[in-house]
Amino acid sequence: MSSADLVNVSSRATRSLIKDAFVASGLPEADALKCAALMTEADLTGADGHGIFRLPQYIRRLKAGGFNKHPNITVTKSAPATALVDGDNGMGHLVMSRAADEAIAMAKETGVSWVGVRRSNHAGPAGLYAEMPAQHGMVGLYAAVANANHMGTWGGTDLLLGTNPLAIGVPSGSDPLILDIATSIVAYGTVKKYAQRGLAMPEGWFVNAETGAPITDADRSHEGLLLPMGEYKGSGLALMLGLIAGTLNGAAFGRDVVDFNADDKSETNTGHFIVAVDIARFLPIETFKSEVDRHIRDLRNSKRLPGVDEIRLPGDRRGECRTARARDGVPLAKPLLALLDKLANELNIKPLTER
Amino acid sequence: MSSADLVNVSSRATRSLIKDAFVASGLPEADALKCAALMTEADLTGADGHGIFRLPQYIRRLKAGGFNKHPNITVTKSAPATALVDGDNGMGHLVMSRAADEAIAMAKETGVSWVGVRRSNHAGPAGLYAEMPAQHGMVGLYAAVANANHMGTWGGTDLLLGTNPLAIGVPSGSDPLILDIATSIVAYGTVKKYAQRGLAMPEGWFVNAETGAPITDADRSHEGLLLPMGEYKGSGLALMLGLIAGTLNGAAFGRDVVDFNADDKSETNTGHFIVAVDIARFLPIETFKSEVDRHIRDLRNSKRLPGVDEIRLPGDRRGECRTARARDGVPLAKPLLALLDKLANELNIKPLTER
Repeated sequence: MSSADLVNVSSRATRSLIKDAFVASGLPEADALKCAALMTEADLTGADGHGIFRLPQYIRRLKAGGFNKHPNITVTKSAPATALVDGDNGMGHLVMSRAADEAIAMAKETGVSWVGVRRSNHAGPAGLYAEMPAQHGMVGLYAAVANANHMGTWGGTDLLLGTNPLAIGVPSGSDPLILDIATSIVAYGTVKKYAQRGLAMPEGWFVNAETGAPITDADRSHEGLLLPMGEYKGSGLALMLGLIAGTLNGAAFGRDVVDFNADDKSETNTGHFIVAVDIARFLPIETFKSEVDRHIRDLRNSKRLPGVDEIRLPGDRRGECRTARARDGVPLAKPLLALLDKLANELNIKPLTER
Repeated sequence: MSSADLVNVSSRATRSLIKDAFVASGLPEADALKCAALMTEADLTGADGHGIFRLPQYIRRLKAGGFNKHPNITVTKSAPATALVDGDNGMGHLVMSRAADEAIAMAKETGVSWVGVRRSNHAGPAGLYAEMPAQHGMVGLYAAVANANHMGTWGGTDLLLGTNPLAIGVPSGSDPLILDIATSIVAYGTVKKYAQRGLAMPEGWFVNAETGAPITDADRSHEGLLLPMGEYKGSGLALMLGLIAGTLNGAAFGRDVVDFNADDKSETNTGHFIVAVDIARFLPIETFKSEVDRHIRDLRNSKRLPGVDEIRLPGDRRGECRTARARDGVPLAKPLLALLDKLANELNIKPLTER
């Protein structure tokens, strides 16, 4: 899509629209603020499929009763270093940020912590949560059961696996390194973005379940299977992460996953896990950071394959987007702007253009 | 390679050859037995690049002084749920099995444990260690810094990344599910096997660093770059796992990695980590297992893409190999048998054929 079809909107404006939309839909002010902040962080860091893009769907779901607007999020500390968070079907951002806070606090005591989450909901980009421990001198690991099954297991066509993402955050002397990968060949949010923008998908993303032939029309992706990253490896990773983020926590996996694109009402029982590892229990944090920086320099200064202009490391795009978008605004596609105007009108709140 | 070029040898025979070879090379009997048992388990479970195949190299290294034959393996418990194991440059199998034992014991107390390892060595297939917690009702996660850098970072050609494997073990009602994946498109042990057996590699495994053209001759793989699984995702995962398994533990990563194929003497300072998560802290283990079994049934009974005869899940090949090879023996290639005969002769121990 050409940049002419994108309009830059300040993150102050998107954040305030998101917050007002949530409040108008019945979320308490503090919760609306927190969700708006995390969704705006997704937009600022380039996770375009996970920020304000999701607002119309979230609002639809809030209206339909699919989210609990006043959840009683509980934390059961099941052992010195483990906890199980029950999100009481609240907004995923609220549940997961609570889980991350618990994980960080526990890891300070025990060196590592593992917090499982059940009865949560879609919580935005995985990198958001892997970064939280990394901002506290810890390694962060995060995974989730995705909120719809777009993949089969390797060779299979029943839609039993989601794009179950994995994110790893590691501190450095400057911004943390953040790896955020869907176990599918591409994140489903990207497919949605292609559909909304009318772009053709590359071959190798989706295949027809009956014939195995490629599907490139993003509007017809529902007729096929999303392929895993790295063939059977991505499929296996989606399966294992699903069992650990879902089944282990008594959360949905496999046939039990609720497709939140098609169903605004049923509780999704979304599962996640987050792990925090306190680096200081292994070596001084400054030593770790300077060693990471040294390795980063080696990697960046590597010779390159023909046609490669620059070495990119995990998290580079996040950092660059954050800088550029904080300055220039968040690029939003015109079809999305139209949806957001319609939403503002329905909720009787100020549209983006008046913010 | 046709099956005519493979000879089945009983695992009793391979295990006793391995053990005798280690003893003849100066390892204490108990250590030799433990290494032989773990290498034989690698062979039985189909990790052909990690079993007796490695024996000539290990013996060469023992003779050259590259391993400490009498290591003082120490465990520093740095927090209630974390420990750092210093392998004192002992055989990796000894160091990692000790680390796994510690991780399992600690997780019983704290719910989760994270054990980092430094000054270890090549320890065989990752699945071996992820399975250990799974045999104790725990989820096991394991990763390692590989003992040679065959990959560049994404777009780069300096050999700064290894095939750094990730393994995840999850208990079920029968055999655990074990995912064991190199972050490269293929494990380097497989490349070695292709070279030894004179097989051409598929395009897409290696490229020439100057031209980007594919390399298919396994004997010429050292002229090029091994590619990551799933493009930038595998490269990113190799990097992050390397930092966590290596740098976090004060172990080698990046430019510091010693290529143990080329250097038999220098200490490799190999890093690993293992995580054990006690399932009973999240839900009753029997509930977990029956839920996993239910999901496995769904996955196995899935409809299939055209041309797919059977759904394969992580660990299937391990289980089938173990059954078949315990019964029929371990298939060894004739060039490997010749090397093992030569080795037995040099060490003045009985050759495989007399066992």
